[in-house]
Amino acid sequence: MERITIKDVARICNVSVSTVSRAINNSHDISDETREKIMKVVRDNYFVPNNNARNLKRTESRTIAVLIKGIDNAFFSPIISILEKEIQKRKYTFVLQRVEQNQDEIDVALALENEKKLKGIIFLGGYFSHPKEKLLQMTVPYVLCTVGIKDNLPGKMSGAVSVDDVAESKKMVDYLCSLGHRDIAIITSSPNDENIGTMRFEGYRQALEKNGIEFDEKLAIIIDDEQHRYSMRNGYLSMKKLLNTGKKITAVFAITDSLAIGACKALDDAGLRIPEDVSVAGYDGLELAEYYIPSLTTIVQPVEKIAKETLKILFKIIAGDKTDTYKVFKGGLVVGGSTKRIK
Amino acid sequence: MERITIKDVARICNVSVSTVSRAINNSHDISDETREKIMKVVRDNYFVPNNNARNLKRTESRTIAVLIKGIDNAFFSPIISILEKEIQKRKYTFVLQRVEQNQDEIDVALALENEKKLKGIIFLGGYFSHPKEKLLQMTVPYVLCTVGIKDNLPGKMSGAVSVDDVAESKKMVDYLCSLGHRDIAIITSSPNDENIGTMRFEGYRQALEKNGIEFDEKLAIIIDDEQHRYSMRNGYLSMKKLLNTGKKITAVFAITDSLAIGACKALDDAGLRIPEDVSVAGYDGLELAEYYIPSLTTIVQPVEKIAKETLKILFKIIAGDKTDTYKVFKGGLVVGGSTKRIK
Repeated sequence: MERITIKDVARICNVSVSTVSRAINNSHDISDETREKIMKVVRDNYFVPNNNARNLKRTESRTIAVLIKGIDNAFFSPIISILEKEIQKRKYTFVLQRVEQNQDEIDVALALENEKKLKGIIFLGGYFSHPKEKLLQMTVPYVLCTVGIKDNLPGKMSGAVSVDDVAESKKMVDYLCSLGHRDIAIITSSPNDENIGTMRFEGYRQALEKNGIEFDEKLAIIIDDEQHRYSMRNGYLSMKKLLNTGKKITAVFAITDSLAIGACKALDDAGLRIPEDVSVAGYDGLELAEYYIPSLTTIVQPVEKIAKETLKILFKIIAGDKTDTYKVFKGGLVVGGSTKRIK
Repeated sequence: MERITIKDVARICNVSVSTVSRAINNSHDISDETREKIMKVVRDNYFVPNNNARNLKRTESRTIAVLIKGIDNAFFSPIISILEKEIQKRKYTFVLQRVEQNQDEIDVALALENEKKLKGIIFLGGYFSHPKEKLLQMTVPYVLCTVGIKDNLPGKMSGAVSVDDVAESKKMVDYLCSLGHRDIAIITSSPNDENIGTMRFEGYRQALEKNGIEFDEKLAIIIDDEQHRYSMRNGYLSMKKLLNTGKKITAVFAITDSLAIGACKALDDAGLRIPEDVSVAGYDGLELAEYYIPSLTTIVQPVEKIAKETLKILFKIIAGDKTDTYKVFKGGLVVGGSTKRIK
């Protein structure tokens, strides 16, 4: 059976593909007149948007794709585990798809939609600041998992579940200040990226400001932006750089636990004691944070809650309920042996 | 982003749709010249072949399923990452399927074969001692990855890639003996299971025997056989049990790094220093082993080689070549700060 494509509809109506997409998705930013014109062509030509076509043909797919940026990030392991388990419990197929650091996740998602019949997509990791037009091309429900966003996404098939990265980071750095620290370094990712790094860095800056500490850019070490972005090795190398600056540091906040652990190792190699000489704090709440020596002060993200809520929202959207698709959980500040009140 | 259809490609190249299909599917009955011309258009236009359409026509899937037992085991993260990358590089779909600890992986595999059209299966983790009759029911090629086996599997569609768990464990415990240790405990999984635990335990026993040390079953702590078998928590609890026996211990060999790290934490909690009071050795070569304080003496498994060889063998079997499908790699004993010559 040959069906006309969204491109054909656009050509016939003399509008752009994204306008057709907006009409189909019932977006607000399109005039009633244009919508009517487009929908008439759609109806007359039996064009069926992908997800409806599936139902009509009764060859319904039961596949959920999880697109992951940073597949070797230990933080994602328990989340993947929970997502996989819950998806299978619902008798759906779980497809895992890596997204490279330099790849655009929406391009990957659109290609996947085209290639397979998906019921929904979960974006795990990465950043998420894509042009509205691009997001509106998505034809299946999708939910961001642990990816913080500033504003709700366009369209009515999207959702997001995460902690508030700005607020949680601020909480941690504020805690370090409360222990008397004023020379607090940060190990973070490039502030030019729209990612968790930007938000956690923002929390750091807000906490400094709140405590009347001037921001010193020499104390902000940007990790090497290669493949293994949040690796222990990257934390290790960043801490070495920081130590080489010769700047006075009494505490370090690393934006992930894995970076914090690499930093600890570099301090240990340099003969500095944690926390007697330098306090170290992380973020994420890996199992490892608890078993490291010393155990790591960190922000524990409620990963099980986040993963389960992500799926709950995704299946809610699939079922047609598009309300309350955004959820922010609170993180928990867990004090370990890696931080100490300043003498 | 506009996407073109297979019809558009055919039009541009001035060939039939089925010729485009043949080019995309790498059929033989098409000239190299035509294929090149078509593939250039395909590449230039970001045309994404529709997998499902292809399946329908050729009843051939391009899906490789990875069945994993212990999905939250950190050791598997880099392996999954490599498998996923390599499978996609070959334009296959990567499906990840969890197998519960108490589930039979062959049952899961047979159900999957039935449900989806698979091209091949990779078994990651778990044990592998299934009745011959059952294994012969498998209808697609499969390769075991990091799963040690005693004998080659029946049938001609199977293979296995791993290190020699007995020999590598023996090497490690022999090394501890060479440092003067004689009171060497082991943290291992149930010897009744046919799994890596059995083989690593066997290596431990062989090394003791080689060094004229009598095996003391009180020094063999069996981990709690629950869901998170090789978790740090399990290593921690096992070490506590060991300490509670009051037996003299100068060294501990844990059969995975994650168990070893849990053990270190329990020793630290008990006020014992590593390695001054107790030496600790692990197995696997996690990134973490290097960044732990102290760094962990461990057996490094060449995970990248193992993962790539697994796929090489799988695709070899798929292509019809069923020779040399078993491969054993050497592990490397890396000495960290967690072991020390006895005083």
